[in-house]
Formats: sequence, structure tokens, C-alpha cells
Amino acid sequence: MQVYRAPVKEMRFLLEAFGYEQVSNLEPFKDYDLETAAALLEQASSFSTEKMLPTNGVGDVEGLKWDAETGAVTTPTGFKEVYAALRDNGFIGITGDTEYGGGGAPETLGIAMGEMSSSCNKSLAMCPGLTRGLIEALEAWGSDEQKQYYLPNLISGTWSGTMCLTEPQCGTDLGLVRTKAEPDGDAYKVTGTKIWITFGEHDLTENIIHLVLARLPDAPEGIKGISTFLVPKFTADGKRNNVKCTGLEHKMGIKASPTCVIDMEEATGYLIGTPHKGMRTMFTMMNAARLHVGVEAISGAEIAYQTCLAFAKDRRQSRSLDKSKQDKSAPADNILVHPDVRRMVLNQKSTTEAMRGLAFWAAIQLDVSRHSTDEKAKQEASDLAALLTPIIKSYCTERGTANISEAIQVCGGSGYTTDWNIEQYYRDARITMIYEGTNHIQALDLVGRKLPMHNGRLVQLFAAKVTEMIRGSKEEPRMAEFIEPLKKISKILTEVTMELAGKGMADPEEVGAVASNYLNLFALTALGYVWCVQVKKALETDNAFNRAKLKTARYYFSNVLPEYESLVTLIRAGKAQMMAFDVEELETA
Amino acid sequence: MQVYRAPVKEMRFLLEAFGYEQVSNLEPFKDYDLETAAALLEQASSFSTEKMLPTNGVGDVEGLKWDAETGAVTTPTGFKEVYAALRDNGFIGITGDTEYGGGGAPETLGIAMGEMSSSCNKSLAMCPGLTRGLIEALEAWGSDEQKQYYLPNLISGTWSGTMCLTEPQCGTDLGLVRTKAEPDGDAYKVTGTKIWITFGEHDLTENIIHLVLARLPDAPEGIKGISTFLVPKFTADGKRNNVKCTGLEHKMGIKASPTCVIDMEEATGYLIGTPHKGMRTMFTMMNAARLHVGVEAISGAEIAYQTCLAFAKDRRQSRSLDKSKQDKSAPADNILVHPDVRRMVLNQKSTTEAMRGLAFWAAIQLDVSRHSTDEKAKQEASDLAALLTPIIKSYCTERGTANISEAIQVCGGSGYTTDWNIEQYYRDARITMIYEGTNHIQALDLVGRKLPMHNGRLVQLFAAKVTEMIRGSKEEPRMAEFIEPLKKISKILTEVTMELAGKGMADPEEVGAVASNYLNLFALTALGYVWCVQVKKALETDNAFNRAKLKTARYYFSNVLPEYESLVTLIRAGKAQMMAFDVEELETA
Repeated sequence: MQVYRAPVKEMRFLLEAFGYEQVSNLEPFKDYDLETAAALLEQASSFSTEKMLPTNGVGDVEGLKWDAETGAVTTPTGFKEVYAALRDNGFIGITGDTEYGGGGAPETLGIAMGEMSSSCNKSLAMCPGLTRGLIEALEAWGSDEQKQYYLPNLISGTWSGTMCLTEPQCGTDLGLVRTKAEPDGDAYKVTGTKIWITFGEHDLTENIIHLVLARLPDAPEGIKGISTFLVPKFTADGKRNNVKCTGLEHKMGIKASPTCVIDMEEATGYLIGTPHKGMRTMFTMMNAARLHVGVEAISGAEIAYQTCLAFAKDRRQSRSLDKSKQDKSAPADNILVHPDVRRMVLNQKSTTEAMRGLAFWAAIQLDVSRHSTDEKAKQEASDLAALLTPIIKSYCTERGTANISEAIQVCGGSGYTTDWNIEQYYRDARITMIYEGTNHIQALDLVGRKLPMHNGRLVQLFAAKVTEMIRGSKEEPRMAEFIEPLKKISKILTEVTMELAGKGMADPEEVGAVASNYLNLFALTALGYVWCVQVKKALETDNAFNRAKLKTARYYFSNVLPEYESLVTLIRAGKAQMMAFDVEELETA
Repeated sequence: MQVYRAPVKEMRFLLEAFGYEQVSNLEPFKDYDLETAAALLEQASSFSTEKMLPTNGVGDVEGLKWDAETGAVTTPTGFKEVYAALRDNGFIGITGDTEYGGGGAPETLGIAMGEMSSSCNKSLAMCPGLTRGLIEALEAWGSDEQKQYYLPNLISGTWSGTMCLTEPQCGTDLGLVRTKAEPDGDAYKVTGTKIWITFGEHDLTENIIHLVLARLPDAPEGIKGISTFLVPKFTADGKRNNVKCTGLEHKMGIKASPTCVIDMEEATGYLIGTPHKGMRTMFTMMNAARLHVGVEAISGAEIAYQTCLAFAKDRRQSRSLDKSKQDKSAPADNILVHPDVRRMVLNQKSTTEAMRGLAFWAAIQLDVSRHSTDEKAKQEASDLAALLTPIIKSYCTERGTANISEAIQVCGGSGYTTDWNIEQYYRDARITMIYEGTNHIQALDLVGRKLPMHNGRLVQLFAAKVTEMIRGSKEEPRMAEFIEPLKKISKILTEVTMELAGKGMADPEEVGAVASNYLNLFALTALGYVWCVQVKKALETDNAFNRAKLKTARYYFSNVLPEYESLVTLIRAGKAQMMAFDVEELETA
């Protein structure tokens, strides 16, 4: 049973709470005021629910067909039609530059619409998701000629994009890339094997443009010798390029999303960006992708939540422990009377709503950082987006997956069967902790890059936002119950950050050992801040929606935030007990 | 890639550490001294690895065939042969009574062998697992005639058993059972529909004996009106009984284990035990099953651990943060140099070894409780087994599943593919948190039944064991680092238990709200105790195995045990923020 209603009201609330007017006041977005934005979200909501959702289970069951001889990949029944409808509605290029036929919408709305698509069909939504990444890389690094040629086709969705990074010997460590690019006139001949290439081959678009990491003949070793190339499936003269899908991975989930082995044998490619500086191009694509991956996990958590709530509302089992709540007209009470069912439901609700808030906050910063004419606002927004991205990617994917597991638990045996689809959401979501940089890579990005960046400017900005919230709430006694725990955790976060900086200077392994737990501590603090922003907004008007917000925030502060206590102890424990082992001592005897 | 080596040395160590001689000194087990036990485990290890493991992935991919007309279920390729080999090796009835052809081995060894089978093919291992449950129910409640007729065939594995509890309207709440049994001479006519019936129909045995919960015509309402019946697929006269599999569930995992809808239409059944007292019969079967389910999750965690370690030992990616550990002969270092990989590996190792210790400790108590002639020893053992069973079922399934997820994370993208099989272990294990009583039902059993039982005698016994460990270690300075944290957590557990007892008397919902977290707090304490037992044993001799034990224990105390801190805060938060919501306020807007 598929249950989904896009959280449009919730999203509109978040847009207001996190200052969407900062975005709609920007010159390029003057056509996207709050009302227009809300109407667009309603439209995307209907589309996702009516068109995308019905194909989701079909895709999981049918999977993909791969022809060994031609390398062609056939998507499941209905995917072509739904993709065509996505394209014809202008959703694929909704955030693309109007100059190239895009919708010119803010990234914030792209993120919101992406959540809906991904809730309803994560596998299919990944195709335009990757295209958007390529569009961003082209906008940032493409030559004028490249933009003119590729962007209109990518933005319209006539073509799609991929990101070809991984090779058998190199995943996290891109310095090990071996794919080669030899100059050939104005172009290059690219040779190598790439793996884990999402939508590397499929039948949804007329052409597929691969963004490929490779080495030029004179490339220095390591990541300082990587360049990026555009390798199209069909070149401008209409010829089939020497790029072939030589296999598909068999995976636990996202079974309708082709994960391809891509072989290139002297394939024609075009340099994009500066020679040997390919990591910059790649990171343009990757940073946007990381935020989207966090949102994918939120999207899975959302549909799983709605599904388990629908199940729970219908299911009667055992009696309320509170006699006054027992329904004598039936042989058992609805399971929502049971405190533990409430606990599981609220663990999901209080974190999913906060994670979405965090993603919206970051998305708004992205738009401001790209388009503001106020240099200070631009820099602050850029700093915040950079700081929050690894947190969103790692924490939201970990918690989102855990939330889906909790949704299964609410449904008991039914949750484990295919009848309620939650088991698919669980399998589909598990990859989000791995791809676009494993969660630990995000933690190292946070601790090793973002914290020290500009002498701690990013983290100081975050601390300033928290302080501003605390100070600004002094006159509002109804904020006190939320501000007190925020104060406490942010004080501890500051202490732990200082301790870690000290330890890390003496021994970088100490940082590696605790970075993942540190990121989660940071995330719990950030979600606390995000809840305070929502509470502040909710206190403006007394209505049913806002009352539920306050209750959900209370649950977060009393029943989720305390997870930080153990994290602090684990962070302080450091690396000592991890590094003490010889490898043989890890073996089962 | 399938990687498995049964932890025989580890198991032998645990048998010694937890006092297996208490079992082998018992009259019925005098043939099973430690050496014989170790030899049997070696034999089971080879069997599991050589025969069962190769069919595991096959079963997952092929799944089951069901014939709608006849209701027949066909198991995957190779399952019949492996089952026959299990039977011919005498493994199915290894713990069965020798009087009926059983091996007469202690339950402790049954548990150990069960772990191996379940690591290597969880789906298949579930069939004899259920048969063993039925054997225990028959031994405890069957008439002499029933024992004579059923036990030899079940113990030999010629027939198999099921447990028919759930109906569409009743899972957790068995009081809602509607299946009816009408007297018919010496027998009964049983009519009703049962769902989620594991191995309810299959082609591995000549006959299938269903243990069915049903109501007699004069039954009182609720669970006080439930009786148990034996309903064979073929009756003694060789006739096909009116029991039919009318469908199979489609599940996330255990795809080779048939989960059947079983329709009975005036099927011939035989009362077992006392009329209306069927819950007692059911619980005999269920309690053993719950311990086995905990072990199933440990078994999944073990094979996943070994797999991710094999992957990690082979994989090179990035450089050690410690320059002295960098391998200059290769372009990257082995990933086990990275502290976070260590963290993930040791989270698994330090909990899996402790959980196995807990299960062995409980298993030894089961044997002593059943066969000791010393009344005090018998009662203490029975108390401990009763107390530890819900903890093992709930904590080990939750942590075991989390450990498998961590094993996937170590392998990155490879962990998400079918190539390394961990994704199957992850899907297969997820059900353990649900079946044989959801984990929250275990928590209610612990808090609502086991704690107050005999005025707190069970929990006082546990506390006495901990105190004995603390006192007995005073003279051993090398124990201090392990005893100190045990002291601390057990003191807090006592405090929290007292608080909860007080709160629960005033408002039972307060107990329901925190029971799951309380169970986890209890489990972390019990694992702390279990590690102290292992450390004490390991300190006897200085060798490589024992040194690794000490290091693993240290990791547990510094990097896992602190999880209790947050649990305590969550328990103290109570129900307040959960019960504040109206149902409509839970809806996504």
C-alpha cells in the first residue's frame, strides 16, 4: 500500500521560518515570491503523487534489463513515460538558467521539489538529479561554447548527465584515478573503466553526457593531476562515441536506477575547466549532490513515516494502559494509545521535520551565496552552506535510514513485507550513507576542512547564529524551555570543538577517530537551532499546525537531543582503544 | 563473496568462562565434556561452512515457488539435499531426548550450533529451529502417547514443526485469536486462518506438525480461553488433513523461508496440554525461540563482521594520518590504518563477542534449570534465564542488525551490492526485531513481568552476580579498569530501576514509554558484566587470543558502554512529550 501526501504546508512554513524572502528578493528570483513558490510546490506535489509514485514499486520488482552485446539498458515499465512527463512539465530544468531555457527557480525550490520526487520514486529521481549536477558544473566551469551546446539540451531534459569518478581501485581516494586522456586535436581520447556510474546508460534520453575524471599525459600524481572531461554518448556529428556500459551492479535497493560499469576506449572527450584542476569541477557537482543526497534520505523518512502512521491509525491491538483511553466498543484499542508506538512515531516526526528545516536553511544559503549583491550576505551564506552540507549529507542519511527502520517496526511483520513498501524505502535509502562521499568522508570534511577554514570563520558564524537566537529570545518567556537545552548543547559543542582542535594538532588520528561522532554532536546542535527557528515562527499565531510544531519541538529537546551526552563521552574517549589492535587481533578465532 | 569461519575457539573460550562444567557435570550430559563439546562444534562448523553456506545466496535469489491449486511450496535448489544432510548428521535432534532418538546434547551446544547454521543459511536454519521449539513443547506438555508418536519423527527430522499463533486481526495481542476447535470424538475439528507461519508448508519433510492456538466452544474470552492443538499435515492414517497453504508473504529478506498463510477447514487436531491454558504451552515454545532469535541476529552480525574484515584487509584507499604507518611501496594504505574503519570494526567486534557471551551464559542457565538436582542452583538458573531472555531477544537483534549495517559501511558501495552478501544478511536480520514478540514486547516482559516477579528476586540475583564480580576482583589490580565502569553503570541501573518502579505504580504508561530504553540500559550493564567474566578468564593465561580479548573489552567499556548516559536521560524524560499529541497532530501537513 502506497501512502503519500507531499508536505506542502510544512514546506511553506519552513520557507517562511528560514527567511525565503531573502531569496525572492534577489533579482533573478523576483518571479518566485512565496505564493508562486507555494503554487509550484502544489503542482510538483500532484505530479509526484499521481505520476511518479505508481511506478516506484514496479521499478523495484522489474529492475533493469542490460543487453551484453550492445550495452543498452532498458528501464522498467512506465519510466520512459514518467520521465517524458517530468521533462514536458519543465521540472528537470526548473532551476536552470532562463537564458538556456531553464525555469530560473531558486535552488531552494529545486530542493523542495526534489524531496517530493525522491519520496515517490527515488530511483527515477536520481536521473534528473545527476543532470542538475552536470548543469551546475557547466554553469560554473564550461566555456561559452560548451554552455551553448550542452545546457539547453540538459536543462530541457532531452539529454542527461552522469558523474564518472570511481574506478575499481579508487573510490574515496580519487588520487588513484587511472583513466587517461590523450590530446587529439581540439578534443581528447579518453580511455579507462569507471564503476558505480548512476544512469551511466539508459533509454530515457536522446544523449548522455558523462563528466569524467581522467589524467592528461603530463599530469602530476595524485589528485593534483586530475582533469575533467565531457564525454558524450553521441558526439555532435551524431556518431556513437566509444563509451559502453559493460555491466550493471546488483544492489540491495534503487533497483530501477542503473549503476553501470562504463568502459571508454579512446572515446572522444572535451576538457572542461583547467587542466589538472578537475577536482574543483568535480566538487561543484559534488557539493550540490551532497545536499540532494541528504534530502533523498529525508524523502524516504517522510514517505515511510506517512505509511507507518496510516498503518498505526488502522491497527488495533491490546488495551491502553490508561483505562480512560480504552475503547469498550472494540475488542482492542488502536495502537497509537501505546506509549512505545508514540515514541517510535515521534522519533521519526521530530527528526524528519528538523532535518527538512536544516536542508531548507542550507538551500536558502545556497541561493543567497550565488546571487546576492551584498558581499557580506553572500559570504555568510556561502560559509553556512559549506558548513552545513557535510552535516546534512551524513546526519540526515544516517538518521533518515534509522527512521525508516523505526517505521518498519511500527508496522511489525507488515513492515517487513512488500505490502506496505516501507521495506523498499529502507533498502533504497541505505545507499545514501555511502555514495557521494561516505558519511565518514563528510565528517572529515567537516572537521578537517570546514572547521579550520578561514581560521574558524564558518563555525564562528554558526555559533553567532545560535547566540543571536538565544539573545533574541530573552524577551519571550515561551521560548525559554527550548532555548535552555540549546544553550547547554551549544556550550558543550564549543568546548568539544576546542578540545578536538588541540588534540588534532598533536595527532591527526585523534580527529579521524572521533570525527563521525563529532559530526553527529554538531548535527544535534544544529537541529536544536533549527527547532528554535521553527518554534519562534510557530509562536506568532495560535493554530492547530503551530501547536503541533511546539509539541514536536518539545519531543525533540527531551527525547532526541539527549543523545549528545553519550556522543561527548565517546568523542573524549578518543582513539586509544581503536589503534591498539594488530590486524590479526581483529580476526574471529 | 562468502566469507565464514565458525568461531569455534571463541565458543570454547566462552564455554569455559561461563562455567560449562556446571552443565557437563549434570547427569544427562556426562557424555558431553568440554572436549566432546568442542569436537561437536568443529564438526558443526565444517558442516555449516561446506554444506549450508553455498546454498544461502541461491535461496535468496531463487526464493520459493507456491502452487496456488495444491498449496505446495517448493524450496530453492539444494535445500532438500542440505536438509537431508542436516538430518542424517543427527543435527536436528542433537538436543533431543535420547529416549526418542535424540543426541542428548545440552541446549548450550544447540545454541552454539544454531549460531553457525544461522550464519550460513538463516532461512534454512529456521526450519529445524521451529521443530526444536515444538519438541520442547511436546516434552513439557505432551501426553505419553503424543510423545511416543511425535517425538521420534520430529527429533530425527523426518517431520518438522510450526507455531501457528498470528491471525490477520491478532499479532501481539493473542487474546484476539478466533480460530475454533470443535470436539470430534477424541480429536477436534480446527477451523481458522493463521498468518506469518514460518515453514508452514514446504517440501523438506514427510509431514508437518502445526502447533495451533485456538478456542474451544466453551472458551472464556481473551487469552484465558486459548488452547493448543497439534494439527498434522498428514494424520496417523496417512490422510491429507484439511490444512492448506493459501499464500506466501513477499518479504524483504529470509526469502527462502516460507512465510505462509495457513487455512484450516475442520482440520483434525489433537489437544495438547490443558484446555484454556494454551498460553503456557505456547510460552514453552516461545521462550526457547526468543533466545534462538537473539542468536540469529548474532549469527548475522558474525558473518557480516568476517566479511567486512576480509574486505577491509584487501582494500587500499588513502594514506594513514600517521606517517610512520604509510606503506611507501603502494600508492595507498590498507583501510584498516584509518581510525574510523577501526571504530566501525570494533563497534561490531566488541558487541558481537559480548552478545554471544550473554547468550552462552543464558543457555548454560537453561540447561542447569532443567536438569540440576540442586534446587537452589535450579531456581537461580531458571531466574537468570527468564531475566536474560527478553534482553537477548531485543538487544541482540537491534544491535546485531546495526552491526550488519556497520559492516556494509566498511565495504562502501561493495557492501550495498550483492557481491559481498552483506546486504542479504542485513535484510535477513531485520525480521529478528519483529518476530517471536516485537522488541518492545520483550521490553514490557522485562519491566512488567520479570522485574516484579517474586518481589524482584530475578533482578536481585542479577545484582548479586555483579556484586560478586566486583568483590571477587578486588585482589586483582588488572581487573580495576573493567570493574570501575561496571560499578558505575550497575549503580545507575539500580537507581533507575527504583525510580521506574515508583513511577510505574502511579502510572503504567510511564513504564511503557521508557521500557525499550530501559531494556537497552540493562543490556549494556549485562554486557559489561559479561565482558568482566571474559576478562577474568583471559587474565589467566597470557597469549595472543587473550590479549585480543582484553583489548576488545577495553574498547567496549570506553566506546560502547557510554551509550548508557543518554539512555538514562531518555528514561528519566518519561512519557510527557509522547502522550501530549492528538492523533491528527501526528499527520504530515
